[in-house]
Amino acid sequence: MYDKDIRNDEDMKRRLIEMAKEKLQNSYAPYSNYNVAAAALFDSGNIYTGVNVESASLGMTICAERNAIFHAIAEGERKLIAVAIVGGTNRECNEYCVPCGACRQVMRDFGDKESMIVLSAKTPDDYLEHTLDELLPYSFGPEKL
Amino acid sequence: MYDKDIRNDEDMKRRLIEMAKEKLQNSYAPYSNYNVAAAALFDSGNIYTGVNVESASLGMTICAERNAIFHAIAEGERKLIAVAIVGGTNRECNEYCVPCGACRQVMRDFGDKESMIVLSAKTPDDYLEHTLDELLPYSFGPEKL
Amino acid sequence: MYDKDIRNDEDMKRRLIEMAKEKLQNSYAPYSNYNVAAAALFDSGNIYTGVNVESASLGMTICAERNAIFHAIAEGERKLIAVAIVGGTNRECNEYCVPCGACRQVMRDFGDKESMIVLSAKTPDDYLEHTLDELLPYSFGPEKL
Amino acid sequence: MYDKDIRNDEDMKRRLIEMAKEKLQNSYAPYSNYNVAAAALFDSGNIYTGVNVESASLGMTICAERNAIFHAIAEGERKLIAVAIVGGTNRECNEYCVPCGACRQVMRDFGDKESMIVLSAKTPDDYLEHTLDELLPYSFGPEKL
Repeated sequence: MYDKDIRNDEDMKRRLIEMAKEKLQNSYAPYSNYNVAAAALFDSGNIYTGVNVESASLGMTICAERNAIFHAIAEGERKLIAVAIVGGTNRECNEYCVPCGACRQVMRDFGDKESMIVLSAKTPDDYLEHTLDELLPYSFGPEKL
Repeated sequence: MYDKDIRNDEDMKRRLIEMAKEKLQNSYAPYSNYNVAAAALFDSGNIYTGVNVESASLGMTICAERNAIFHAIAEGERKLIAVAIVGGTNRECNEYCVPCGACRQVMRDFGDKESMIVLSAKTPDDYLEHTLDELLPYSFGPEKL
Repeated sequence: MYDKDIRNDEDMKRRLIEMAKEKLQNSYAPYSNYNVAAAALFDSGNIYTGVNVESASLGMTICAERNAIFHAIAEGERKLIAVAIVGGTNRECNEYCVPCGACRQVMRDFGDKESMIVLSAKTPDDYLEHTLDELLPYSFGPEKL
Repeated sequence: MYDKDIRNDEDMKRRLIEMAKEKLQNSYAPYSNYNVAAAALFDSGNIYTGVNVESASLGMTICAERNAIFHAIAEGERKLIAVAIVGGTNRECNEYCVPCGACRQVMRDFGDKESMIVLSAKTPDDYLEHTLDELLPYSFGPEKL
């Protein structure tokens, strides 16, 4: 069980960014050459990784963040604590990769909007940090249905 | 050509909300019974409407906002000025329907993040108004690819 | 009301293909340069058109066929009779554009699998014709939910 | 490395179906109560599992098959050999779950259309077996882009 405050847990933040970076080589983006990887921490303390996967039918493409989250749910996780994202054109990591709107929406299904955080990282020491509510304010969530 | 400042154009805002309301009966949401309609103004001055359409393969579902925007693009539009959204469970319109993250992302493809606005409306006189940048801050857009 | 047998209605097939071709210029595919347009006939006798629209978040991309169908549903249609598809790299129409699996699935929501047809066309006189059941056999449809 | 002919490998088919069944409890389908799980074999011999995950924004929903495949790609796999699918309303497994069109399309990105197989199973001994080409004939694949 992960019971720390992720906002102050620099070790975990570094670890998430490093785990995302390790997976970046597996990104499958033959059409855009825009490669992304993500690592997602759940309340069990387990970390799940994902990469973007593009399809020849472009609309079937999945982002790295959702790939990691969906896999975690399949493993029985339900409560998302943090997501780290790395990437860029040709895996260069020279920009801060922010999540697209669709990924922010899926984070909203499993994360607490005030406490869940997203790290958009160049390196383990150089990242932007946002809460989910900062990225998807005035959001539509599961409580509506 | 629409050349007014939508922020101050109360007549147009009312018209968008009314046009969305008129289409709400066509919403196809047999699985969730959560019905939504949208009207989108483009810089030509033309308004395009859409509703949510659910598929038996739920992931193939489209929201009202994207339905309206995608149709407008097919008609040759490229510059989005404003979107009005109405709806709720069983078409009741007793809540402010905010756009999901995926729709915010597609708005970002065609709207200016500072000036484009989204109206989440109960009635033509009762609505929330947000700029795209307020709904999708720190966004990922077409300039990245 | 359209009450002919589309399988034998060569005039309508030509018209659908021509209407798709007319919209192809509006295809928005800046990332793949693979441009597609579609025209969909519903049982009202009305024809609706669509193009593919790509998003910077590639997974938010929509195909031409679904764009046309979703717009028709928003206009109150519910029964799909036929879809014509044209396109190719740089709008060249020198191949037969078959629908992707996602579009075949959405056709299944609104079309009869035995009688609905798909035309993958190069010209109004040169096309492949398939029933929905030929394109999506052993399908999963709305009767399951 | 998996070097057998999956068509004749009854042990592997049973194992795939059993592994899918074990994950079915993790399916997250609060809106449809239609629960599905899948297990995907790649040419490394490794098996990856997934479940369907529904989002409050229904269009962000992912199917079990794509969840399993996308995770495998993130782990470095590229060549899909077989997918087993189980499920149904309230996890009952009393029907043969065939893949939706979108999942068939993503299988086409990574599977050989003649040799890749899909098992739609009720039990390890009671299943339908199809090649990808039988499920998605006249398909659109990566060779087009």
